[in-house]
Amino acid sequence: MKRKVRVVVWGLGSMGSGIARMMLGKKGFTIVGAIDMDPKKVGKKLYEILEIAANEDNSCTVTENAEDVIKKGFADVCLLATASFTKVVFPQIKMAAEAGMNIVTTAEEMSYPRVVDPELSDEMDRIAKENRVSILGTGVNPGFIMDLVVIMLTGVCDTVESLNVKRINDLACFGKAVMVEQGIGLKPEEFIQGVKNETIAGHIGFLQSFGMFEEAFGIKMNNIRQDKEPILTKVPRATDIVSVNAGDVAGCRQLGYADFDGKTFITMEHPQQIKPELENIETGDYITVNGTPNMNLQIKPEIPGGIATIAICVNMVPLVINSEPGLKTMLDLPIPRAIIGDVRDLVKALD
Amino acid sequence: MKRKVRVVVWGLGSMGSGIARMMLGKKGFTIVGAIDMDPKKVGKKLYEILEIAANEDNSCTVTENAEDVIKKGFADVCLLATASFTKVVFPQIKMAAEAGMNIVTTAEEMSYPRVVDPELSDEMDRIAKENRVSILGTGVNPGFIMDLVVIMLTGVCDTVESLNVKRINDLACFGKAVMVEQGIGLKPEEFIQGVKNETIAGHIGFLQSFGMFEEAFGIKMNNIRQDKEPILTKVPRATDIVSVNAGDVAGCRQLGYADFDGKTFITMEHPQQIKPELENIETGDYITVNGTPNMNLQIKPEIPGGIATIAICVNMVPLVINSEPGLKTMLDLPIPRAIIGDVRDLVKALD
Repeated sequence: MKRKVRVVVWGLGSMGSGIARMMLGKKGFTIVGAIDMDPKKVGKKLYEILEIAANEDNSCTVTENAEDVIKKGFADVCLLATASFTKVVFPQIKMAAEAGMNIVTTAEEMSYPRVVDPELSDEMDRIAKENRVSILGTGVNPGFIMDLVVIMLTGVCDTVESLNVKRINDLACFGKAVMVEQGIGLKPEEFIQGVKNETIAGHIGFLQSFGMFEEAFGIKMNNIRQDKEPILTKVPRATDIVSVNAGDVAGCRQLGYADFDGKTFITMEHPQQIKPELENIETGDYITVNGTPNMNLQIKPEIPGGIATIAICVNMVPLVINSEPGLKTMLDLPIPRAIIGDVRDLVKALD
Repeated sequence: MKRKVRVVVWGLGSMGSGIARMMLGKKGFTIVGAIDMDPKKVGKKLYEILEIAANEDNSCTVTENAEDVIKKGFADVCLLATASFTKVVFPQIKMAAEAGMNIVTTAEEMSYPRVVDPELSDEMDRIAKENRVSILGTGVNPGFIMDLVVIMLTGVCDTVESLNVKRINDLACFGKAVMVEQGIGLKPEEFIQGVKNETIAGHIGFLQSFGMFEEAFGIKMNNIRQDKEPILTKVPRATDIVSVNAGDVAGCRQLGYADFDGKTFITMEHPQQIKPELENIETGDYITVNGTPNMNLQIKPEIPGGIATIAICVNMVPLVINSEPGLKTMLDLPIPRAIIGDVRDLVKALD
């Protein structure tokens, strides 16, 4: 039997701890290092944080000092779930790559980093190749449902006139950070002000999805534009975290458009809100391909964001380990797939 | 500007001629050779067969002698649409590979040849590597909707308990060969006899799809079994090719099952018939993932078989050219995607 795949998990928020828990539920992974800044977590055993029974694969001590575990020969792969932006995760990626670790990150911008940070992308590609590792950013969106699945569907098309992609999802299960990013609970005028001064981030990912479309199709799109509109609720809506009065903001409808050949080629619509069912709004993922042939795909209810992002990060690990070195995107690698058997059967020989 | 991608099309039936027509509608392909056995086609110019205006990319003369065009340095890729079975296309694949051509074939068994012909698969892999080319079998099914898309959907899953895949499609647009293969127009007892003595082929592909699932998930399934049932019509149904009386066979419902871990893991249901709308049967593709998370995907109406198979064969050409040499499956290569721009922008340098 091959040795287990050794993992460092960097960041133990809801994504990072979910990733750790999922890996430990599978055969063939061992978590040899865990990094987090939260004083409540530092110094504890990983199994304590995850509230699972101790064993040899989950008994590392959480450290706040990356250099304790990001060091040569220590791990095969680093799962990085610390931030959304390439510029923020770049130093962490550099450190892990130089320690010889393959990297999978949840950072949204890293799903297609070239569109915002072309120089840093070149630099990451160079570092990855020098150190014979691969680097991938992925997640449910960007990384899967509003880009990869859409592109794959066009694989059975002769012509594509336009693409309409819509993801209606429920944010009720998320925490305070997401509520603030989406402006949930604000008055309508506060939301509009927040969009202006960029305190409302909304969905990070349309620019990255558009970059994937351009590369996949071998085209250059133009007039790329985005809007953020408040979703005003007619009824009170509440979660454990936030209460929204009727007339106030229950979510953010993000819209994105890109033109090709003189007309709107891609339309993205992503209304994210808490408790859509209170206004009888059905959640779902919808893809319409106008072309030869026309196609209408739907997934109802929507692919749930949290578990799906966790799962795709874990499931891509064997493909990232097996890949040629370099900075990769989901367009470069074979399709994601669930790990059902032992992960050791899916990876090529480890050093 | 790079030179055009040079293509030989082998087989000018409905798939092969569709492939030729689609390629000629795109920028960057030139068809330098066409092979067919039909005396009505041999000696004609390709543009005559396709009924399109002549130009430099479609003016080759159709030959029945493969050696006229399957020769070293003559083409970059061979599109092979002559037969369904690996054993039948193997000599053609060998010849094209030894002439230095990458190969994409519609042969259903070639979508995952290892399951029926492991030795021939090893041989093709060896020949491909020796000649620095790649070989791929693909199509809408097997190759896409009942396997690749299903597997990709599990990429956002932690656990997968079972998979249900259903494709309800209309065969009305197909020709005589398909009607015979599916037993359409027969009496119920003739159908049952035809299944027994194997004159009714039904759908070729479930074994190949199961092979893809096993490799993707890193598992070994067992108790793989298939059934073919007649679809008896309550009302008369007819196409230009065939007329079916009420009570007779309007199609073939193919069922496939594979077990894992002591229970049915994959259920495939593929009722193929003419004019399902006459009994108010809606066509569509349906995928249910029972796992974490559960997911329900539908595409209504179904992805149309003919155009989709043609398109995926053409769209995979740049990915096959760019691939490392060897016998490949859809699991090995990046996702299919429409060719919208110039194909030359999608391929690496051609010798």
